[in-house]
Amino acid sequence: MIISVTGIGLLGGSLALSLREKYPNVRFVGVDTSVVNQKIALAKGIVDEIVSLEEALEIAELNVLATPVDAIQKLLPIMLDAIPEGRTIMDLGSTKELICKAADQHPKRGQFVAVHPMAGTENSGPGAAFKELLGNKNVIICDRDKSNSDSLALVETFLRDAGMKIHYMRPVEHDLHLAYVSHLSHISSFALGLTVLDKEQDEQTIFDMASTGFSSTVRLAKSSPQMWAPIFDQNKTNVSKALGDYIELLKKFKDAIDNKDLDTSLSFMTRANEIGRILAGIEKK
Amino acid sequence: MIISVTGIGLLGGSLALSLREKYPNVRFVGVDTSVVNQKIALAKGIVDEIVSLEEALEIAELNVLATPVDAIQKLLPIMLDAIPEGRTIMDLGSTKELICKAADQHPKRGQFVAVHPMAGTENSGPGAAFKELLGNKNVIICDRDKSNSDSLALVETFLRDAGMKIHYMRPVEHDLHLAYVSHLSHISSFALGLTVLDKEQDEQTIFDMASTGFSSTVRLAKSSPQMWAPIFDQNKTNVSKALGDYIELLKKFKDAIDNKDLDTSLSFMTRANEIGRILAGIEKK
Repeated sequence: MIISVTGIGLLGGSLALSLREKYPNVRFVGVDTSVVNQKIALAKGIVDEIVSLEEALEIAELNVLATPVDAIQKLLPIMLDAIPEGRTIMDLGSTKELICKAADQHPKRGQFVAVHPMAGTENSGPGAAFKELLGNKNVIICDRDKSNSDSLALVETFLRDAGMKIHYMRPVEHDLHLAYVSHLSHISSFALGLTVLDKEQDEQTIFDMASTGFSSTVRLAKSSPQMWAPIFDQNKTNVSKALGDYIELLKKFKDAIDNKDLDTSLSFMTRANEIGRILAGIEKK
Repeated sequence: MIISVTGIGLLGGSLALSLREKYPNVRFVGVDTSVVNQKIALAKGIVDEIVSLEEALEIAELNVLATPVDAIQKLLPIMLDAIPEGRTIMDLGSTKELICKAADQHPKRGQFVAVHPMAGTENSGPGAAFKELLGNKNVIICDRDKSNSDSLALVETFLRDAGMKIHYMRPVEHDLHLAYVSHLSHISSFALGLTVLDKEQDEQTIFDMASTGFSSTVRLAKSSPQMWAPIFDQNKTNVSKALGDYIELLKKFKDAIDNKDLDTSLSFMTRANEIGRILAGIEKK
């Protein structure tokens, strides 16, 4: 059996590394436009060989599509056009509505499974991939009823073998929730990093005065712009709404500080503290 | 020798635990208005005995004042009034301007050393204290020229023995920088937690869909409101300015998303990526 990974980055690479351990007899081939990524993927043993997308589609049973979401949206119909019967494509994109739409009218829609693993780090590229990334994490499959039962069963088996817990959702619902629990925290972090960099011209000052709290809050600001710009764009309506809600709350908090309204500040923070219950659960995952 | 800790929380408790290891013959006494904190501090061996503030000032060579900053501001002049000659008070407050001002006109100003360790976690209280918290962290001493050389030397010795690297700064400068590298990240995190909680009425959804990126960005939202409300209030002008800068950047980013202006989004994130260099340094600390 052969599995192809198109876009050998953090997610695609980590999935391959995890599955290789479980399936020593599966051959992994990789497709990537970056020669550097190709070399790293081979050197780390993420894939056995680099091939063209055409070749991957010809030989692979399962094609993992793990590029940035704008490339997924473009490649998916082209790949469905070319894919032989009985083969499967799964994507790993962080948005689902436009990607699913790109496949919906295709006669081979059934050979596609729309997947999003709830896992990541602030690092990107195959150099950042590690086999433990997906273990014990949640994964969302969208529109499972639009996938053939064989393709769905194949994908579900591999996801479970990578240690993931499967949930099902509609793309619209997925994108709405993701705007709040993932996309917004990336923007808040990018903006925090930039606010501090703009103010503190002397980096040594940040270095001397920042604590681990700052690093934790700002670490997503290291995330790949090339990956995130298309995500925010594809999920524009939801992300804009989430960001608007966030800005409104920040303004109210600023007003409370400006007006020395400690009661409002306290109630704001006390309500926010409830996130602790949820974090305890996430950390136990 | 006796050291007193008034306000036996995360910072005061961690400092005591760290120093106890280096100075097994020093006796530690604690002052705290909370009976629960008193019991935990005794049970964890943070202090040997709970005493009144009056008694602490009578017997302790060094008095560590580690309450929330509003209480520091109120207690400091009262403690200076009562303290015998040759004894020292150091505070651990996250703001410095108003605290230093509260001591500046006092005839015993020289017996006070204004200290702020760049360390913390999202947890609070003596239960969260651990002896490694301060090791290898930076600490700021403000207005060192206003402290007696004996008091300064005593405090510096203990801070170094707790593993800290000492920097010197004026209170005004300290509070300005802290607004950006610490206070703002707490507000961004509180607001992020609240935005998500307000939207996601079903906590299971957050639990299923959030990844470690979300936990990292939002973990400061667990911080103590009672500790942070007075910090934001004491550093009102700087925090309000930092928060205003942050809101402006978020609005610009929102406009870029709304207008499908990917170039601006990309340049915004690429500039924010530079924080990575600084984070690498902080994580190595």
